[in-house]
Amino acid sequence: MNVLLVYAHPEPKSLNGSLKDFAVQRLEAAGHQVRVSDLYAMQWKAPLDAGDSLAPANGTPFHPSLASKHAFENGLQSPDIAREQEKLKWADAVILQFPLWWFSMPAILKGWIERVYAFGFAYGVGEHSDSRWGNRYGEGTLAGKRAMLMVTTGGWESHYDARGINGPIEDILFPIHHGILYYPGFDVLPPFLVFRSGRIDGDRYAAVTEELGQRLDTLFTTEPIAFRPQNGGQYEIPSLILRSDISPGQTGFAAHVALEN
Amino acid sequence: MNVLLVYAHPEPKSLNGSLKDFAVQRLEAAGHQVRVSDLYAMQWKAPLDAGDSLAPANGTPFHPSLASKHAFENGLQSPDIAREQEKLKWADAVILQFPLWWFSMPAILKGWIERVYAFGFAYGVGEHSDSRWGNRYGEGTLAGKRAMLMVTTGGWESHYDARGINGPIEDILFPIHHGILYYPGFDVLPPFLVFRSGRIDGDRYAAVTEELGQRLDTLFTTEPIAFRPQNGGQYEIPSLILRSDISPGQTGFAAHVALEN
Repeated sequence: MNVLLVYAHPEPKSLNGSLKDFAVQRLEAAGHQVRVSDLYAMQWKAPLDAGDSLAPANGTPFHPSLASKHAFENGLQSPDIAREQEKLKWADAVILQFPLWWFSMPAILKGWIERVYAFGFAYGVGEHSDSRWGNRYGEGTLAGKRAMLMVTTGGWESHYDARGINGPIEDILFPIHHGILYYPGFDVLPPFLVFRSGRIDGDRYAAVTEELGQRLDTLFTTEPIAFRPQNGGQYEIPSLILRSDISPGQTGFAAHVALEN
Repeated sequence: MNVLLVYAHPEPKSLNGSLKDFAVQRLEAAGHQVRVSDLYAMQWKAPLDAGDSLAPANGTPFHPSLASKHAFENGLQSPDIAREQEKLKWADAVILQFPLWWFSMPAILKGWIERVYAFGFAYGVGEHSDSRWGNRYGEGTLAGKRAMLMVTTGGWESHYDARGINGPIEDILFPIHHGILYYPGFDVLPPFLVFRSGRIDGDRYAAVTEELGQRLDTLFTTEPIAFRPQNGGQYEIPSLILRSDISPGQTGFAAHVALEN
């Protein structure tokens, strides 16, 4: 299978750099084709702006989504954007690897999402009607592909506990899992997490890579997070509020994950 | 009072640009001193990297937090970083204004946080002991100052409802409110939000600016979100799990907000 690893760390000789190399080797040894988008090495342009189109509209204010739509539809996207979209279409699975900085992805990776996720590619796809609200949240250009996060954080696991001060890690990652990956159609796997990333000795590194290896070996068989599809009848259209008879009374991010049978 | 507005939108002739101008005029008319960090106009460098120090360590791998600590302690920070830190120290209140892109702040603003929030300035402050875990979450360099988000989003308000498909807006913003603003000490005000930002006609614009004006007029009197201070005894040290007798059984982001009396 084809695996795209989008990697966002500035230092090759870091824990993240080592885990990236380990992942590539493990996946290739299993017979997969692997491509890496090493955003720092590529000097990826982070800010979304008018320069993302080869023919920016002159004389009219820059409108991010309309400009993106025009460039995508007319083959006028900046080549760096088009190349990454090709990689996404090529991939059967996508891994986003990054250190958790200020409880989200590094700016350079956020800018990759903002620019590569064009209107017509990752959003603004499909029709709106009485029963549908576009192809998103379970449908879309990237449907049928898998995605997984590989995230390191300096904090302790308990700090990300259900009652830990940082908030539960699954809630911190929900806007990425659900809002960035499930949105354009990915099946989203549970994340691979490394806590206390500043305290990795040889024994812990062996344990971390052992666990990572298992996750990579099961990349195409692990059960995805059971996010609820938008257009399957579970949400009211157009309010997009969960139907009152589904998980009655439950609120918050967890309401959008189906309970196990 | 002194107000710093950190603004992240690429187009001056946008809704965000208009609201920024409105906010500056309203605050100045009330007698406040206002400074604006217009990140796109400043061509703010988003990616955190070794170039953020004037004297990067040669021959050793780049370590983001240790490099930041060394540069901060020795006056070796890139001047653009030091200037923004000075603005933060000058300010009595800070407003972060941005369109919600993929359920978080634009990359250029995330990169402002990552680079300006140096080790020794916004994290890595204070001592660790049996009763304290550094000066953070309610204590720190920016304690005594206020912060507020001004956020526009194209989605409907119902999509961000307690059971809306995007997740509740207060949960989507929690990692910013709590993890980025409360962390280094800010008192965090409820956000100013504009939904369906693509459908603002004259009447709605008048209503939006009326509400924004009220929020700016009460910037220094509005009650902050009642986040729980880390070192006040409500969390176990060092696990940083909320004490079992406080909001027993409650989990998730909301557990970190004190209930009203």
